[in-house]
Amino acid sequence: MRDATPYAILDCVLDSRYPELTCSIARALEVVGERWTLLIIRDATRGVSRFEDFRHSLGIARNVLSARLEHLVAEGVLERRPYGSGGRSEYALTDKGRDLAVALIALLQWGDAHYPAAGGPPRVVTHDQCGGPIRATLVCTDESKSVAADAIAVHPGPSADQPPSGVAAGSQ
Amino acid sequence: MRDATPYAILDCVLDSRYPELTCSIARALEVVGERWTLLIIRDATRGVSRFEDFRHSLGIARNVLSARLEHLVAEGVLERRPYGSGGRSEYALTDKGRDLAVALIALLQWGDAHYPAAGGPPRVVTHDQCGGPIRATLVCTDESKSVAADAIAVHPGPSADQPPSGVAAGSQ
Repeated sequence: MRDATPYAILDCVLDSRYPELTCSIARALEVVGERWTLLIIRDATRGVSRFEDFRHSLGIARNVLSARLEHLVAEGVLERRPYGSGGRSEYALTDKGRDLAVALIALLQWGDAHYPAAGGPPRVVTHDQCGGPIRATLVCTDESKSVAADAIAVHPGPSADQPPSGVAAGSQ
Repeated sequence: MRDATPYAILDCVLDSRYPELTCSIARALEVVGERWTLLIIRDATRGVSRFEDFRHSLGIARNVLSARLEHLVAEGVLERRPYGSGGRSEYALTDKGRDLAVALIALLQWGDAHYPAAGGPPRVVTHDQCGGPIRATLVCTDESKSVAADAIAVHPGPSADQPPSGVAAGSQ
């Protein structure tokens, strides 16, 4: 818990800034928390690269898509490169953008688990070498084993703005 | 890629509905994609449970917080329970809510990696049994090993609305 300036909702419905929150989740959401952004990144992981294809896939207004793509290029999540001879551009994930795969697949499996589609999952994710199913999981790197969400603890780190309290996740 | 009805941005800046998208990521974002929602869930994983404590932590308007909490209770992500004798309530994560830990920690480590705080990470996540660092990772469940984001493939599943194309993540 921390002090934070009350936020004027009318100022911020179209963006995602959380300026008073010293938190890496809040910082991540400043970049990818805007409406449609994670779905643009999802499409990019599936090979969508051109403006019209994003637009066809998502059905969003040109100005919104354009703003989101500009923002993702400015943040280094996507890179713009020339496409064809008409001065057009296409967009590709950078390594930083590809790093979001864990968060995207975690959201996908949460959606699959708790809002299952009638006919089975709309998308399946597999290991390209062996074809085995891919899961996003929490892993203890000391023990190299998967860990349940109620077996973790979140502690204030070096740049926390509050003294340590060591509230355990799932303990409430 | 799919057909989707163009979306009137003015209708939806305060919600997160993607009604034409058959996708578990889109379904997940319908529930947790609204501004502040993932930060409320983050606070709940740290033991925040009371309205005033969420408000103090996030600095958001009462009506916004109230709407987000109602939505999360209606979706079964949080449960409301009586607190004290004044008819007040507190909020606790359900199992479904705790299932979001993987997505939250994936966003946290992406923020740590790409937007590092000057003094080190604001929060550290550890295994409560051994104290080892926790990472959100992609795991091949057949081989029980961690897999890089460029070694996965996303395929249309049983309820996909398009024929298979097997676009590999990271191949563009």
